[in-house]
Amino acid sequence: MAKSKKREPVILITNDDGVTAPGINALIESVEGLGKIVVVAPDKPQSGMGHAITIGNPLRLHPVHIFKNIEAWQCSGTPVDCVKLAVDKILHRKPDLCLSGINHGANHSINVIYSGTMSAAVEAAIESIPSVGFSSLDYDHEADLSVPKKYARTIVENLLKNPLDKHLILNVNFPAASKSAVKGMKICRQAYAKYEEDFVERNDPTGKKYYWLTGKFMNFDKGKDTDVWALENNYVSVVPVQFDLTNYLLKTKLEKTWKL
Amino acid sequence: MAKSKKREPVILITNDDGVTAPGINALIESVEGLGKIVVVAPDKPQSGMGHAITIGNPLRLHPVHIFKNIEAWQCSGTPVDCVKLAVDKILHRKPDLCLSGINHGANHSINVIYSGTMSAAVEAAIESIPSVGFSSLDYDHEADLSVPKKYARTIVENLLKNPLDKHLILNVNFPAASKSAVKGMKICRQAYAKYEEDFVERNDPTGKKYYWLTGKFMNFDKGKDTDVWALENNYVSVVPVQFDLTNYLLKTKLEKTWKL
Repeated sequence: MAKSKKREPVILITNDDGVTAPGINALIESVEGLGKIVVVAPDKPQSGMGHAITIGNPLRLHPVHIFKNIEAWQCSGTPVDCVKLAVDKILHRKPDLCLSGINHGANHSINVIYSGTMSAAVEAAIESIPSVGFSSLDYDHEADLSVPKKYARTIVENLLKNPLDKHLILNVNFPAASKSAVKGMKICRQAYAKYEEDFVERNDPTGKKYYWLTGKFMNFDKGKDTDVWALENNYVSVVPVQFDLTNYLLKTKLEKTWKL
Repeated sequence: MAKSKKREPVILITNDDGVTAPGINALIESVEGLGKIVVVAPDKPQSGMGHAITIGNPLRLHPVHIFKNIEAWQCSGTPVDCVKLAVDKILHRKPDLCLSGINHGANHSINVIYSGTMSAAVEAAIESIPSVGFSSLDYDHEADLSVPKKYARTIVENLLKNPLDKHLILNVNFPAASKSAVKGMKICRQAYAKYEEDFVERNDPTGKKYYWLTGKFMNFDKGKDTDVWALENNYVSVVPVQFDLTNYLLKTKLEKTWKL
């Protein structure tokens, strides 16, 4: 039997900063030529939306022509909605890979749970689409993303050559450091580090009170195998993520204690 | 030193169906007398909000007087916002326990990720507040919640007597079955079961296309140790949940394959 020509992989790209964010453009540029790219991203910033889905309202999809030779759509929903709609209504099949980002801001440690960028990646993996979320610790929208672009391409090339797992999710964060300062990649676990919340309390123009979320980032985790440690030491952190939230240790403990 | 009188535990109650949903009233009734109850819940339905937080907008808090002798507040944000605001601006301390629900609808299997009810519980546990989310498979808002109320009280009594872990999260789901049909509780793992998505495609009154999320629930998991199995067999399912999303198996695999 003649060997059939290998099909070009389909790469779905999304983010949570919205389709016009520089980060998504950088991600497209970084993987150009590695497959057929289709973009489906939110039509407005959706940071902090976590794994929210739109169930009580309709969703809209509009084609956008802002990336050269790339099919792109903007969606009125959350990052997770974008992945769902892309598979069901645009691609009509599962892509080979889903990439999310590059996020303008950190998604290490507990941020993985709040992040729309990472939730899009998690959603893809639930659908058996291997996925990677990319985030830069540089919050500046005009930041130089050449380091993230270089590593993102290496990671995607690697995953396309050696598919590891249909439920694979990687949470990749880039330190805000120059090319020469970055020491390489490190495979890590999620640090127990989080924001210590504090709400700013103010009065609106009519004198009514309102609250605005703020917070100080605190690392309670002294491990040197965490994403926060890696980033502080100028490594690109790579955390493999899962969507089975079962706490198996606590399950064993409960089975012994509760004696059902 | 004289033994000091034991302080009454503080129980924070929230949900994602909103402060006026019958489920939250049932949860309050079920734990009455076990501690000082404070309610902080969304001012409108927030189902499917996952772990969303409000970062680009202010939040409002208003006292509500709909529960007899119970301090209650409605919040304009998500279930996760409610927990954050409750700790920082209402209680000014961590409660001893956070309860979320009783949700009108299932939060077993992959629903744990989309559920505002469960995300509120997860948020509390991140803050070192042991927490339990309760959900009924009966979607009827007027459903008889006497079975959930009975088991919720047993679980809460148990947790207050034998504190297990400050990061404890339990995802408790109740079958839509009569008191006599329910066989008891089962400690389970999260099933790999999910909705196979399909969007309804329609035209709005101006002729423009919109999409509305729908889906068919499919169980791909044949295990008899899962929450879906337990519920199908008329058990109350109890899944211990964690917020460390690191996939340690994949981490080991990557360390071997990538050879960094």
